[in-house]
Amino acid sequence: MNIVIIGFGSVGRGVTRVLIEKKKFLRNFLGDYKVIAVTDSSGGIYDENGLDLRKVLEMKSKGGLPKEITSIEVIRDLDFDVCIEVTPTNVENGEPGLTHIRECLKKGVDVVTSNKGPLVVAFRELMNLAKKNNARLMFEATVGGAMPVIKLAKIDLAGNEILSVRGILNGTCNYILSRMEKELLPYELILEEAKELGIAERDPTYDVEGIDAGAKLVIIANALMGLDAKFKDVERVGISNLTPEAFKVALENGYTIRLIAEANRDFLRVSPRLVPLNHPLAIYGTLNALEIETNLAGNVFVIGKGAGSVETASAIISDLICLKSLRY
Amino acid sequence: MNIVIIGFGSVGRGVTRVLIEKKKFLRNFLGDYKVIAVTDSSGGIYDENGLDLRKVLEMKSKGGLPKEITSIEVIRDLDFDVCIEVTPTNVENGEPGLTHIRECLKKGVDVVTSNKGPLVVAFRELMNLAKKNNARLMFEATVGGAMPVIKLAKIDLAGNEILSVRGILNGTCNYILSRMEKELLPYELILEEAKELGIAERDPTYDVEGIDAGAKLVIIANALMGLDAKFKDVERVGISNLTPEAFKVALENGYTIRLIAEANRDFLRVSPRLVPLNHPLAIYGTLNALEIETNLAGNVFVIGKGAGSVETASAIISDLICLKSLRY
Repeated sequence: MNIVIIGFGSVGRGVTRVLIEKKKFLRNFLGDYKVIAVTDSSGGIYDENGLDLRKVLEMKSKGGLPKEITSIEVIRDLDFDVCIEVTPTNVENGEPGLTHIRECLKKGVDVVTSNKGPLVVAFRELMNLAKKNNARLMFEATVGGAMPVIKLAKIDLAGNEILSVRGILNGTCNYILSRMEKELLPYELILEEAKELGIAERDPTYDVEGIDAGAKLVIIANALMGLDAKFKDVERVGISNLTPEAFKVALENGYTIRLIAEANRDFLRVSPRLVPLNHPLAIYGTLNALEIETNLAGNVFVIGKGAGSVETASAIISDLICLKSLRY
Repeated sequence: MNIVIIGFGSVGRGVTRVLIEKKKFLRNFLGDYKVIAVTDSSGGIYDENGLDLRKVLEMKSKGGLPKEITSIEVIRDLDFDVCIEVTPTNVENGEPGLTHIRECLKKGVDVVTSNKGPLVVAFRELMNLAKKNNARLMFEATVGGAMPVIKLAKIDLAGNEILSVRGILNGTCNYILSRMEKELLPYELILEEAKELGIAERDPTYDVEGIDAGAKLVIIANALMGLDAKFKDVERVGISNLTPEAFKVALENGYTIRLIAEANRDFLRVSPRLVPLNHPLAIYGTLNALEIETNLAGNVFVIGKGAGSVETASAIISDLICLKSLRY
C-alpha cells in the first residue's frame, strides 16, 4: 500500500508518528505499507521507494519540509493507493482540500480525510465522484475525532435506518459549559481559563459560535441520513450569551445546559439546550457524544475524545484498515 | 444467500420479523436472500426454495413448528450459506448451541449467533475451527444486544490495542440499582417491582448474581483483548446484599452504585462498584454501557439497549451484512 500524506500539521504528524511507532502491529492489518510523499502548504518531499518518516518529522520541526514537490504535483504525478488528506479546514469553500480530494477521486485513488471543509461544501458531489471512479472516500476523522460515528452507524448498526442524531460535537464548548455548571461563574471568566489551558483558541469564534459543531452535523446528517444538507441549512446559536443564572435555574430543576447539535428530517440545529443531569449526553470536560436514533436498535450513544492529534490519527488509521479490508 | 435459523424463541422470531418487514431495504445490503429452514427444540420445517416466513411464524404461534426436520439434520444435510444460531444459552456446557456451531464451522458455513454459551465455553476452539475451515463466526448479539461492542472495537477502533474494558452488561441489575438509588428502598422491594414489570425473571439468579454479565465479560475479553478466559475465571459478586443505606452514603459523596463488569490483563470481575454521578457509566434504567480503554483513541464509551428481541435482531442483521461485505 503506497500512501501519500497531504497536510503536515498536528493531524498529519500524529498519523505519521502512529505509522512509525505501530508499524509492526499495523502490518497485520495493512500489509506492507510505505509513505511515498509528504507535503504541506509550503513544501513537500517524496521518494517512490518510501520515505524515512522519522527524518521527515525532524525536517518539519527544524525549519520545514524541503521544496521538492507540491501537493497537487504529488496527486497528479505520483502513483499511489491512498491519499491521507489532512490540510486545514475551510468551511466556506473547502479549499485546498476540495481540489486535492477531487483530483484523487478522479484518478480512482482512495482518500482518507480529517478535513471537514470539502465534505461540508460538496458532500454529494464527492460521494458521486468516488462511486463513478470506483474509489472510496473515508472521513471518520472529520466528525468527533476518536469517537466512532460513521463506521458505527454504517457497519455496527448496518441494516438500521438512522432517524435522527443529537449530540455534543465540540469539546471546547463542552469544557466551558461543564465548568460554568460547576463554578457558576460568568462565561467570559471560564473562556479565559480555557484559553490559558489551550482548550480554547485565542479567537474562539469557530468553536463557541457552533461553527465547528455545525460543520460536523452537516457531514453526519448527510452520511447517516442520506440528506444533502449544506452549512447554511444549520440554524445556529452559540454559547456566549449563557449566564451563571441560567445554570443555577437549570440545576435546581435537575438539568444542565449543553451545546446540542441535532439533525432530523425537519431541521439541522446547533443550540444550547437543557439536558437532564442523568441523561447520557450530560457529559463533562472536553468529551464529545452522539445519540443515534435508529429504527431497530433503539437509541445508541457513543462518547469519546473529539479532538487530539493521536485520537484523530486513530480514526484515520481505522479508515485505512477498512479500505484494505471492506466495502460498505 | 441461503439462511437457516436454528432456535425459534424470542430472538429467532425477532430476526424473522425483521427479515420479513425490511426485506426490500435489506436486499440493498444482502442481495437476494431466503430462509430455507427454521427449527426449534421440538420441531422444524424446510423448503430449499425458501420458506414463507409469515406462515412459519403463524405455525409457531398456533401450536409449534411441524416435525419435518431436526436442527442437526438441517445443519448436516442441507446446503446453506449462513446459520443463525439463536438457541437458549447454557453457560455450563454450551449445548445445544455448541454442537450446532461446531458442525456448521466444520462444513465451512458461516454462523451468526446470539448464544453466549458456546462462546463462553469454547471461544478459542470455535475461533480456530472457523479459521481452519475458512468460515466466520459472528457474535455481536451475544454481548449487549443492540449496543455495538465487537464490531465497534474490531472495525471502528481498528488499529487500536484494547487495554481494558469496564461496563454495565446487565439491564435487569441496572434497573434495580437505578431504582434503589432513586427510591432508597430495600433490594427485595425493588426486585418485586422489576418482576411485576417483566424486567426481572421469576428466578432472577442469572441476572442478579452477575452470571449473565460474567458470561458477556468472558466473550468481550476474549474477543477484544485476545485472552482465553473461561467463566470460572470471573470473580463474581451480585447485587442482592446492597442496602438503601449504602446508596445513601454513596449519594452524599457524589457517587452511585452499579454492577460493573471489568476485564484487564490482571483480572475479570463482576461486582457492585461506586461510580461518580457524572461519569458516563452512571446510566439509568435497563440500558447497558461499556467503556473501552484503548492505546490511541483514549477511552470510548458506548451505551445502548442490552436486550429485546428487535434490538438483538438488529445486532444479528448487522453481522449478516458484515458477512456479506467484509472480512475482519
